[in-house]
Amino acid sequence: MAKINDNYLKLKAGYLFPEIGRRVREFTAANPDAKVIRLGIGDVTRPLPPAILKAFHDAVDDLATTDRFAGYGPEQGYDWLINAIIEKSYKPLGVDLKTEEMFISDGSKCDCANILDIFALDNVVAIGDPVYPVYNDTNVMIGRTGEADEKGYYKNIVYMPCNEANNFIPSLPTSKVDIIYLCFPNNPTGTVASKAELKKWVDYANANDAVIFFDAAYEAFITNPDIPHSIYEIEGAKKCAIEFRSFSKTAGFTGVRCGLVVVPEEVMGTTSTGERYSFNKLWLRRTTTKFNGASYPVQRAAAAVYTDEGWKQTREIIDYYMENARIIREGLTAAGVTCYGGVDAPYIWLKTPGGMTSWDFFDKLLTECNVVGTPGSGFGPSGEGFFRLSAFGHRENVIEAVERIKKNLK
Amino acid sequence: MAKINDNYLKLKAGYLFPEIGRRVREFTAANPDAKVIRLGIGDVTRPLPPAILKAFHDAVDDLATTDRFAGYGPEQGYDWLINAIIEKSYKPLGVDLKTEEMFISDGSKCDCANILDIFALDNVVAIGDPVYPVYNDTNVMIGRTGEADEKGYYKNIVYMPCNEANNFIPSLPTSKVDIIYLCFPNNPTGTVASKAELKKWVDYANANDAVIFFDAAYEAFITNPDIPHSIYEIEGAKKCAIEFRSFSKTAGFTGVRCGLVVVPEEVMGTTSTGERYSFNKLWLRRTTTKFNGASYPVQRAAAAVYTDEGWKQTREIIDYYMENARIIREGLTAAGVTCYGGVDAPYIWLKTPGGMTSWDFFDKLLTECNVVGTPGSGFGPSGEGFFRLSAFGHRENVIEAVERIKKNLK
Repeated sequence: MAKINDNYLKLKAGYLFPEIGRRVREFTAANPDAKVIRLGIGDVTRPLPPAILKAFHDAVDDLATTDRFAGYGPEQGYDWLINAIIEKSYKPLGVDLKTEEMFISDGSKCDCANILDIFALDNVVAIGDPVYPVYNDTNVMIGRTGEADEKGYYKNIVYMPCNEANNFIPSLPTSKVDIIYLCFPNNPTGTVASKAELKKWVDYANANDAVIFFDAAYEAFITNPDIPHSIYEIEGAKKCAIEFRSFSKTAGFTGVRCGLVVVPEEVMGTTSTGERYSFNKLWLRRTTTKFNGASYPVQRAAAAVYTDEGWKQTREIIDYYMENARIIREGLTAAGVTCYGGVDAPYIWLKTPGGMTSWDFFDKLLTECNVVGTPGSGFGPSGEGFFRLSAFGHRENVIEAVERIKKNLK
Repeated sequence: MAKINDNYLKLKAGYLFPEIGRRVREFTAANPDAKVIRLGIGDVTRPLPPAILKAFHDAVDDLATTDRFAGYGPEQGYDWLINAIIEKSYKPLGVDLKTEEMFISDGSKCDCANILDIFALDNVVAIGDPVYPVYNDTNVMIGRTGEADEKGYYKNIVYMPCNEANNFIPSLPTSKVDIIYLCFPNNPTGTVASKAELKKWVDYANANDAVIFFDAAYEAFITNPDIPHSIYEIEGAKKCAIEFRSFSKTAGFTGVRCGLVVVPEEVMGTTSTGERYSFNKLWLRRTTTKFNGASYPVQRAAAAVYTDEGWKQTREIIDYYMENARIIREGLTAAGVTCYGGVDAPYIWLKTPGGMTSWDFFDKLLTECNVVGTPGSGFGPSGEGFFRLSAFGHRENVIEAVERIKKNLK
């Protein structure tokens, strides 16, 4: 008798974004004339820049030839892409990485989820609250947790509240944990961590033989020169941290699909008999056995991001989104809304006016302003009373959304 | 203290294909002038046909516009691709599927591996021997097995020997199993199963509440009109079978990456409290939480396979490979080698001459003929004494490889 993985039944409701999609579809079906502006799901909207498009087309043309045809590539990604990223994106930060320490994937969501495969189930995991739901849900699905309590906290996960009191930077856990998820610039709060702040975490991890999962999906949006882009800018991090990066937001690849993981050779775990074992080796085995590499033309397109022309054009798009962020942040602040983030991150984390719940504010914005955002409580109990707006929209939509909200809140 | 997933340490040696790659690299480094012909890894070599290339380019061009830009798509794939596959590839077989029953992915290797996520660990799994190593290794990695014995059989897996005596079709297991992997046309043996044969399996599964994982990655290579292309051609299969298909071999997508899974709504498992639960729902939750959809231009390219022009061009490539298969099969048979497969499948499964071991024959072919194949023992203990040649090479290479082998074996 085939038995299901019962852990899935512990999951509360649907995954956040499909639920938002459902409510929006219902609203637009009932109100076909409403001009709905979507600043919810954090999906990019700008076209790919010319240098990246050209590389993409050229790679598709390679597939039209017998001599340049690309079949199975290395499961962990092509050297020419890995080395371009190391050279152009890590070296300038003072971070040296080996080719063997980077793995190209079809996206950061998959990587953040799949990395759990190589860890024992009895590791204690600490995640922020609010948090990108994938961190929480994948731990539930793999069977690391008990049931959720009435608040939505799952047994055996250590939640680290991020709120106004601690400026949305979690405190070091008081109980011992083995795996710590950190995401800076943060999704959903838009906050960043200084080097001194990250140093505390690296020191904790090294002192406790813990591993940090550092999600740097939004590093390209940092504007403050003192804020680290990679955890490896922190001394000792190569001994304890696995870093995730994505082309989704950086280069507009949400539909194209490319991400990467850095697993330094020095990051070690312990076997049940107490020996040290390299997570890099395990991740290589996992990657070669369960994955077949990111699409070849996609990897070529990703490599073009790091050409001089590609990077200049990519930066222009990032600047465009960050100008959107400024417009949202300043507009709503002027309307009396308390806003966080939006300076080094493409997300504005706002306090719902009048103490409304996050979903009530979601429904209010949707039905009264026809603007879609993301309810803070969807990211965890500490997100209740907050709301995320994304800066990834079209400029004219962003301006109009802000005007509508300002008028509505007057 | 972060603990590793110890199950990985049970794995024997590296994954088969990286090991072949290693030996070939060593040989070519030592013999830079050798003209090595690769008929090993089963990677395609023909360029993508014009209709597919055009759709691929057009989709990349969509990403250059603001109005046709495609960001996050549905995690489970676009309806226009799913419905094209249902209409063009399943309907003609007499198989009706709902859009919600098909999930588009970045490849069948990932799907075959990831499907285990939604099954409880204490299900008993039956796999063929020899077998595509991913089935075996992913069960080891997820923790369903004990250690391997000296032969390479892992405890708690039921192995179903496929050999000359049973014409490489496994017998029904004598002990009760919950999950059965079937692959027809078979990798590595190239054998196919008749409807009557598959009916036995479907009846077994329905009688025992077991689930069949049916890997149909090579269905497009079937030439005999009586051989089923889908398990759903068998009555009752929609109650018990999950089917995997791939664009890798069918349409030359090994580097492009696209596959699909069919999880009919009627396929049910049991919770630990004895209720019935739909695997389709679980797979949807898994897909939306751990995956972000296959690349948009890739899905557009895949859809073009099902246009009249695309399908005609795709068929020509399949015919090209099957002519290669005929050349290998007939050439080696004429040289006195016993060959299986190669009629309804792109693989020729040959008996090593003079009772050599598979790896000895691999080394002999590599060093004496400069031809790369795949050792049968790499697919499991019952593959010992056999060897797989792939029909996916360039015609002139295939002809030359066969000539070299014939001359060598004289």
